[in-house]
Amino acid sequence: MLINCVAYQDGKRLAEIDPKDIHRYIAMPGCFVWVAMLERDPATLEQMREEFDLHPLAVEDAQYGHQRPKIEEYGESLFAVLHLLEPDNGSLRVGEVNVFAGPNYVLTIRSHAEKGFQDVRTRCEREPELLKFGSGYVLYALIDAVVDRYFPLLDAVETELESIEDRIFAGTSPRENVEELYGLKQKLGIFRHAVAPLLEAVNNLYGARAPRVCTGMKEYFRDVADHLQRLNQTIESIRDTIATAIAVNLSMIGLQENETMKRLAAYGALIAVPTLIAGIYGMNFHHMPELNWEYGYLLSAAIMIGADLVLFLRLRKAKWL
Amino acid sequence: MLINCVAYQDGKRLAEIDPKDIHRYIAMPGCFVWVAMLERDPATLEQMREEFDLHPLAVEDAQYGHQRPKIEEYGESLFAVLHLLEPDNGSLRVGEVNVFAGPNYVLTIRSHAEKGFQDVRTRCEREPELLKFGSGYVLYALIDAVVDRYFPLLDAVETELESIEDRIFAGTSPRENVEELYGLKQKLGIFRHAVAPLLEAVNNLYGARAPRVCTGMKEYFRDVADHLQRLNQTIESIRDTIATAIAVNLSMIGLQENETMKRLAAYGALIAVPTLIAGIYGMNFHHMPELNWEYGYLLSAAIMIGADLVLFLRLRKAKWL
Amino acid sequence: MLINCVAYQDGKRLAEIDPKDIHRYIAMPGCFVWVAMLERDPATLEQMREEFDLHPLAVEDAQYGHQRPKIEEYGESLFAVLHLLEPDNGSLRVGEVNVFAGPNYVLTIRSHAEKGFQDVRTRCEREPELLKFGSGYVLYALIDAVVDRYFPLLDAVETELESIEDRIFAGTSPRENVEELYGLKQKLGIFRHAVAPLLEAVNNLYGARAPRVCTGMKEYFRDVADHLQRLNQTIESIRDTIATAIAVNLSMIGLQENETMKRLAAYGALIAVPTLIAGIYGMNFHHMPELNWEYGYLLSAAIMIGADLVLFLRLRKAKWL
Amino acid sequence: MLINCVAYQDGKRLAEIDPKDIHRYIAMPGCFVWVAMLERDPATLEQMREEFDLHPLAVEDAQYGHQRPKIEEYGESLFAVLHLLEPDNGSLRVGEVNVFAGPNYVLTIRSHAEKGFQDVRTRCEREPELLKFGSGYVLYALIDAVVDRYFPLLDAVETELESIEDRIFAGTSPRENVEELYGLKQKLGIFRHAVAPLLEAVNNLYGARAPRVCTGMKEYFRDVADHLQRLNQTIESIRDTIATAIAVNLSMIGLQENETMKRLAAYGALIAVPTLIAGIYGMNFHHMPELNWEYGYLLSAAIMIGADLVLFLRLRKAKWL
Amino acid sequence: MLINCVAYQDGKRLAEIDPKDIHRYIAMPGCFVWVAMLERDPATLEQMREEFDLHPLAVEDAQYGHQRPKIEEYGESLFAVLHLLEPDNGSLRVGEVNVFAGPNYVLTIRSHAEKGFQDVRTRCEREPELLKFGSGYVLYALIDAVVDRYFPLLDAVETELESIEDRIFAGTSPRENVEELYGLKQKLGIFRHAVAPLLEAVNNLYGARAPRVCTGMKEYFRDVADHLQRLNQTIESIRDTIATAIAVNLSMIGLQENETMKRLAAYGALIAVPTLIAGIYGMNFHHMPELNWEYGYLLSAAIMIGADLVLFLRLRKAKWL
Repeated sequence: MLINCVAYQDGKRLAEIDPKDIHRYIAMPGCFVWVAMLERDPATLEQMREEFDLHPLAVEDAQYGHQRPKIEEYGESLFAVLHLLEPDNGSLRVGEVNVFAGPNYVLTIRSHAEKGFQDVRTRCEREPELLKFGSGYVLYALIDAVVDRYFPLLDAVETELESIEDRIFAGTSPRENVEELYGLKQKLGIFRHAVAPLLEAVNNLYGARAPRVCTGMKEYFRDVADHLQRLNQTIESIRDTIATAIAVNLSMIGLQENETMKRLAAYGALIAVPTLIAGIYGMNFHHMPELNWEYGYLLSAAIMIGADLVLFLRLRKAKWL
Repeated sequence: MLINCVAYQDGKRLAEIDPKDIHRYIAMPGCFVWVAMLERDPATLEQMREEFDLHPLAVEDAQYGHQRPKIEEYGESLFAVLHLLEPDNGSLRVGEVNVFAGPNYVLTIRSHAEKGFQDVRTRCEREPELLKFGSGYVLYALIDAVVDRYFPLLDAVETELESIEDRIFAGTSPRENVEELYGLKQKLGIFRHAVAPLLEAVNNLYGARAPRVCTGMKEYFRDVADHLQRLNQTIESIRDTIATAIAVNLSMIGLQENETMKRLAAYGALIAVPTLIAGIYGMNFHHMPELNWEYGYLLSAAIMIGADLVLFLRLRKAKWL
Repeated sequence: MLINCVAYQDGKRLAEIDPKDIHRYIAMPGCFVWVAMLERDPATLEQMREEFDLHPLAVEDAQYGHQRPKIEEYGESLFAVLHLLEPDNGSLRVGEVNVFAGPNYVLTIRSHAEKGFQDVRTRCEREPELLKFGSGYVLYALIDAVVDRYFPLLDAVETELESIEDRIFAGTSPRENVEELYGLKQKLGIFRHAVAPLLEAVNNLYGARAPRVCTGMKEYFRDVADHLQRLNQTIESIRDTIATAIAVNLSMIGLQENETMKRLAAYGALIAVPTLIAGIYGMNFHHMPELNWEYGYLLSAAIMIGADLVLFLRLRKAKWL
Repeated sequence: MLINCVAYQDGKRLAEIDPKDIHRYIAMPGCFVWVAMLERDPATLEQMREEFDLHPLAVEDAQYGHQRPKIEEYGESLFAVLHLLEPDNGSLRVGEVNVFAGPNYVLTIRSHAEKGFQDVRTRCEREPELLKFGSGYVLYALIDAVVDRYFPLLDAVETELESIEDRIFAGTSPRENVEELYGLKQKLGIFRHAVAPLLEAVNNLYGARAPRVCTGMKEYFRDVADHLQRLNQTIESIRDTIATAIAVNLSMIGLQENETMKRLAAYGALIAVPTLIAGIYGMNFHHMPELNWEYGYLLSAAIMIGADLVLFLRLRKAKWL
Repeated sequence: MLINCVAYQDGKRLAEIDPKDIHRYIAMPGCFVWVAMLERDPATLEQMREEFDLHPLAVEDAQYGHQRPKIEEYGESLFAVLHLLEPDNGSLRVGEVNVFAGPNYVLTIRSHAEKGFQDVRTRCEREPELLKFGSGYVLYALIDAVVDRYFPLLDAVETELESIEDRIFAGTSPRENVEELYGLKQKLGIFRHAVAPLLEAVNNLYGARAPRVCTGMKEYFRDVADHLQRLNQTIESIRDTIATAIAVNLSMIGLQENETMKRLAAYGALIAVPTLIAGIYGMNFHHMPELNWEYGYLLSAAIMIGADLVLFLRLRKAKWL
């Protein structure tokens, strides 16, 4: 579905144009066209392929989606695939945006994601000085926006991890902790697949062999790369922490087993000791003076309770109970 | 065994020819011959070696098979080894296809695999524009087909892993889980051995130093490399998940041990407490008023049952039972 | 907040100048201005941006902070971000210093850190021979000071680790040990994020492609890189030790479980044996000679105590008690 | 000890010659001498050093042995060290062969290994076309033979690993499994030390900077490198499997502990329940009707047996017994 | 402290000279001075700095010590830092030697190490042909000597590891095993820090960009690098083995727990069974014929002993006892 189709000249918005007039605008000097599509739609895509002379392999990738992030050169044009991450009921939804950026056009196709790029367009139109760079600047602004949206999501993962850590050391719900750590690791995998290949791709946009479309934007793409580097580092750091947390949780389970065992043994002793005493007074010796005492029974009960009390206090002191 | 032997000119199929006429066709300008063999067969292989002047080391590799995936240059020709993976009774069968691709010929030898490459030939013949590139395009189409067949198989591994995950967190059959995770890891090793060396090899087909046979196919081989990269990433990600799942399963076993211990202790207490009471009333004191009560026995039974009931409810509340 | 603003010429301090006169001084040959700011302050930063013609992206980074350490070239100037670590109540506070170093100016912005760089300025002014190198030398002196401050903090981490090791092998407080090892690992992560990217950045300051600002300072920047390398190595080594310590602690927990189990069983036996003896003399056989003996009861008590004594000594010898 | 000393010309065997005549033959055009020694022997080695003008450092290495595999250039000559692996009573014996290969000579010194290289000499003499390449071809043939001998030994390791896997999942002899996995890992280390450095060394023999002795043998050395790559991959894969197997075995030990505990508790219950019943009928209440019943005793026995039977069946059903 | 100061010319020892005459000798063609110092001593160091015109940063490093191994170029000179390892009461003492090697001088400063380099000097003077290379050869001889001293120490670590392995599989003293493995790992860290950076540094001494001082010594430095490579490989291999040994030890602890549990349960059963029998004959049924038998008591004792005997034999057969 086509969202909008705007022509720009010398960094300024000319007009919203009809897709059929694209070829006329892109033939004008200093002019470029920025088309935004939502979800893949073969007919429109085919129309765009003809207007912009897109490479069939890139179009095929855009058609089927589910690519890994990448930025590929096809002659003078670039084809970029970015992952769009959005929170979805505690997990992450992975959308995609495909960007075709040629010398005089930008085509974006967003799919499986709710939030659009209207804010990017607004930002670009507010900065005509930079928009003069043409499609290279639009590409930068799109990547920058996508990457900036990763930060709060990754922060949420860190917060979640911290709350699990607290529970691990408080010794509560080890089963849930393991399960959530596992879930967190899966989530982290989604970030890694979004960030690491993109970092690699963006690094090629500002070096000595940067594509022509990106000319003059060196500092800007390096800045995006730096943000991706920072995300990458955070991801690796969380990943490492999760592995340690799983190991630590295992230690905690071992420790709890130890403590459970001690507590059980303590309760067992509290039953076994009076059982022994009762057994002793259940012996059938003829000559057991206590048996004939008037308060022998009470005495035996007192011994049982007394022994248990002493035992209980010592066990409590030893922290077994 | 020879399956078929077809001559092509300028991207169009000329005719199915007799192997003995090969040298005549490959001498014609713009003409190349595509021979398909099934299973190794020394006699035919020798015949092909002579027709196409294949390098003895490559022929030796093709003869004995069980190579790791690779693409090697021998002068103007390429020798490629690809792994063919096919599901086989829950495990994977590893077949092999050897491809000799010279300036005017392609020879494929498939072995230990059921599915052939008729669909690749059909696809190539449907695209004469591309088939004009000659043997380079056929090589691309073959690798592309082989790689595309890996995807559904790897998806099946992911699905299997997810079902094990569910069972791990449901706490059922830990022994089977471990065994299946181990099996999955072995299976993943097969994918790794098929994908990683091939990726490395394909990466050399589209750079600045690409072999002459592959001229003009840059975008196509890069596309295959991208697919292999994606497979590689999925493999690494599954591999990582399996390692975590094994660690998590160990935690789960520890937790179950903990719980088993608690449950056992609970049952033990339910027996020990009445045993103690019975022991008390088995004492031989002369002065034990309860012994003479008419309903003393019933009372003791009531105490036993009552104590157990209280205990049972508390244990249940504490989730030990 | 502006701390001070000093002009230097040919390695010697000229005067503390008014920020408004900066442009006059930086126009003088062999002259450079060194401005120090504390905490970000948009107004002053904007003023500096104009005086020194700073790149908007670098200014934006300085504005928002929380960057990873890096040194970036913007034309003839460098923009450096360094982490400042300071102990804070047992944990580490992460501050930041941003340095803009152009051919004739140095601007530092320190934030979230108490200790300033007055000592660096003093050192620079004591070495006019080196200060002649201009802003490159100041940059070196700043990085060197920041890096030197990491050493005692990392030493403290090593000491902490050693005390945990002692406790692990003494078998005391396994729960605290795990928790502290985990905390130590987190702390180490902070060092890693401060050191590793900085090392990478500094390595680019003394090679063949060093920025012009750093000309002639090769040995000095290599020396800083060497210090960072040393820190890096220590961090990796501590990291490895922590992982081993966690694994060892798990073994220790298993061993303690083993020992607890043995001790519990020993105590259990000390109760079970007399219970059995009491049970035997509680049997109702008519012909049990011991029952009629005058000292039968005492004898039975003696047997119980004797059996327990023998058992106790054997268990002690076997180190179960 | 000198085994044999043969001169070759234009790929054909001239004659077995006296070591003293070596200098005469190596001066003839198209002629080279191939000397084979067994075990180091200072006198002969010194003689060879003089005849062939070997570099003292290489001679020293050959003298003392226990080198890691390597191929070093000394001027126009190559000095190669290869590990020879031979099965020895269930473990591996590590022998060594040192090869000096100059433009017109090859000297091999084999030590600590039983199997010689007569088959390599035979193969070379059967292929005069290739032997024309001179010492480079002999070097290739030697490395190829050594590498080919690794394959069956590594296969044996894989087979051994598979039999351990079977036992792990059958739950038998966990102690032996751990011990054998450990032994296997040690064995694998021997392979790694033989293969990995050799692969690195051979990779330098066929690139753009290949030594002159190896000229024209590119495809052959690449083929050896490919075999080494394959061995390397198998080693890494076994190594990974062993690590997983050790982790899995730990899980299995945990599971067995769980099961042992359940079984013990089950047996305990089968004793505890009749003990309770006996305790009840050992109470001394005056009014316990069952005590006076004629078949009370039998009844109580029946209850005990009955209770145990029910318990037994339920425990068996729950797979605790 | 200055140990000795000797001048050499054309590979031959001229004379032991006074430090004050150094400048005269180093001005003579083909002449170089080799000064050896023990422990740092600011005054002498300052004197040397002036005589040889050493770089202040290198002098500073030498002054404070505790550097990581490195070899740095300062103009025409090299500054090398090597770790000296010496056994010290079961642990390792880490000393240091700093070497300044210029075109016509060598200065060594040894600290924290007992063994000196007199043997290196002797060796050098015995080989005037090589000593003609000047300070480059002395540098080589020093590094070679330091590296050769690492070998027996690392062998000792291997031996220690083997003895721990034996104890792990014999199942003795798991607590000591863990502690010693941990200690061994720490020791290994010391080796790593001595070897790995040095290897990296030495690798730069024989390539295409080797420093001028090392001209003509290519094979010699490559030989040292090869020794370091071998050490490195052994270190990595021991490191890997220690990690496996820790994991295996954990398995062994789990297995012992299993066995302890079984043995405890076996002993428990040997007490519980006669307790049950005693309980049965302690029941108060009026009609229990055995109670009236003359040998009832003996019989019951016989049953108890008999039951325990049977049980004992079965448990022993099942290897629980």
